[in-house]
Amino acid sequence: MRVGILGGGQLGRMLALAGHPLGLECVVLEPNPEAPARPVSVQLVAAYDDAEALAELAARVDVVTYEFENVPVAAARFLAERVAVRPPPAALEVAQDRLAEKTCFQRLGIPTPPFVPVHTRADLEEAVARVGLPAVLKTRRLGYDGKGQRVLREAGDVEAAWAALGGAPLILEGFVPFGREVSILAVRAQDGTCAFYPLVENRHEAGILRLSRAPAPDTPPELQEAAEVYARRVLEALEYVGVLAIEFFQVDGRLVANEMAPRVHNSGHWTIEGAETSQFENHLRAVAGLPLGSTAPRGVSAMLNLIGQVPEPAAVLRVPGAHLHLYGKTPRPGRKLGHVTVCADDTATLEARLAALRAEGVAEP
Amino acid sequence: MRVGILGGGQLGRMLALAGHPLGLECVVLEPNPEAPARPVSVQLVAAYDDAEALAELAARVDVVTYEFENVPVAAARFLAERVAVRPPPAALEVAQDRLAEKTCFQRLGIPTPPFVPVHTRADLEEAVARVGLPAVLKTRRLGYDGKGQRVLREAGDVEAAWAALGGAPLILEGFVPFGREVSILAVRAQDGTCAFYPLVENRHEAGILRLSRAPAPDTPPELQEAAEVYARRVLEALEYVGVLAIEFFQVDGRLVANEMAPRVHNSGHWTIEGAETSQFENHLRAVAGLPLGSTAPRGVSAMLNLIGQVPEPAAVLRVPGAHLHLYGKTPRPGRKLGHVTVCADDTATLEARLAALRAEGVAEP
Repeated sequence: MRVGILGGGQLGRMLALAGHPLGLECVVLEPNPEAPARPVSVQLVAAYDDAEALAELAARVDVVTYEFENVPVAAARFLAERVAVRPPPAALEVAQDRLAEKTCFQRLGIPTPPFVPVHTRADLEEAVARVGLPAVLKTRRLGYDGKGQRVLREAGDVEAAWAALGGAPLILEGFVPFGREVSILAVRAQDGTCAFYPLVENRHEAGILRLSRAPAPDTPPELQEAAEVYARRVLEALEYVGVLAIEFFQVDGRLVANEMAPRVHNSGHWTIEGAETSQFENHLRAVAGLPLGSTAPRGVSAMLNLIGQVPEPAAVLRVPGAHLHLYGKTPRPGRKLGHVTVCADDTATLEARLAALRAEGVAEP
Repeated sequence: MRVGILGGGQLGRMLALAGHPLGLECVVLEPNPEAPARPVSVQLVAAYDDAEALAELAARVDVVTYEFENVPVAAARFLAERVAVRPPPAALEVAQDRLAEKTCFQRLGIPTPPFVPVHTRADLEEAVARVGLPAVLKTRRLGYDGKGQRVLREAGDVEAAWAALGGAPLILEGFVPFGREVSILAVRAQDGTCAFYPLVENRHEAGILRLSRAPAPDTPPELQEAAEVYARRVLEALEYVGVLAIEFFQVDGRLVANEMAPRVHNSGHWTIEGAETSQFENHLRAVAGLPLGSTAPRGVSAMLNLIGQVPEPAAVLRVPGAHLHLYGKTPRPGRKLGHVTVCADDTATLEARLAALRAEGVAEP
């Protein structure tokens, strides 16, 4: 069976690596001829809106999925007329627009920060009055890794935020005084079966994920349960097939949904070694119509992103329980070049191993 | 870093899959243009004795290794004049000849069955007299999966065995009335550090490995210790770098060495999910000069070879803890097409899962 993937970055690479043992060969549509997925997949080098390339992809594969959410919805719909597309293009559409996304959460009874759409300068004033300060002004589309957003702490910040972002469709969201950020990776099979990985605790720096701990420490079962209930509502409402990630703010014992990604997710990379079945394998199992694998954790794990530069591999591999994942990308400041997952049987050992990675100079916040 | 591999079968495929996360790209020299390793590596399609192709391989990589032991030693030596070759060609030479192999074991104080080289019909008579019956007549070279051998149970069997195998250099070995077959996977790094996986219990059928259980059930620590002592002697005597497999007959509480393979081995496939670091990753770490990873098991595992035909993937994946590995090969009777590893926390659960695989029609002796 052949699986088409829109996008050939590191997520496409790790999907392709997970596909080979299952007998699934991945065909990637991706404009960058030196994409991370290239050495492990068949690549069509073309733009996402290239109708000829999309038709060729549809002809060559049995099912199409995506590895990032900013592919044009029109491309996914074009493909869906020719071949199965999973998750459904509607999920892509919702996830691409922060307003649609928050509205979807709200409709499904999933708590969100207060939010108001903003088109004009006058809208913004009114939105600030309704939401209150502090608040966050965000572009509705194409934001990732903290890009396209400004925090408004006082009335004087409004002008500069509007100057930076005004013109694009915007959303103003109430600032959530959260204790930590957590995410859930959920997966739904074609027969409707759902499975959930344990909540992950995420630490960001300058808007980029740096460190995930899984299962998230100090997580009462009610929190996991709430996350699963919310994720299931989204999966079922969208008739979703594949892996879905939802990021939450945790405020005391409550979850407030921040955003979702209709794909495998950086906060799920730990599952390669840290869970019975990786998010990449489970995504492929789902889209290929196979039974899901167990999402149970194996011990405890932490995942460190390698950003901007790659440490000496030996420095990582010297640390017990550490696993290196490089993406074959050219180093550039702020670029995700790889990650390290470190596993252990218990939290104390895990923290000692994280300290050993720090001592080896492997970056960590 | 680039790693050259002589051979592009399933072992090359799994090495290449393990290499990508470490930032190691594999370049495979292999005559079959549809080799299992092809979709995940760069392939040079050429014969193993093609000097031009060997020179190109040497020029394109930093180190060369092999994935099966029947590549010409001359090719390995040709390469060794141009680029690092690990394990050393001398290990290949010893493993290719059953007489050299048994002599090496004997010299290192590792128990073997009695053995005598056989060149002529007269030699064979004399060898039978010395070794006694039952005995096994084997070709010294190119035997694998039970090919190139005949069991002599009584004097009347000598004639037919000679008719079948006579002409090639042979070895007559005493038949070992063994309780079971076990193997050890050992690995040595460039700095001389050695690590050992737990002994594996292997069940063959018609000379082909069908089922491995790891760690081998009912294994007293002395047996593991003996295997490690023997393996370390071979690793150190050959100044070996990489993974080495040694197969033993277990006779009561003793180990009798049968053969070795200077490469990753079918009885080590369980390590992908069942050990902290897979044999494939550890082989690459060793040949690339990186620190070794832990060889500790994660729970208990069993590995089933998929021979001649491939079951429905869903039938395998429905069973909890089961992991499918297909090699992308065309089905043919007796051909290894893939394997299934099933993992569990304890032996009872493992056996129940093996029974579930049997119920799903996944082949098992």
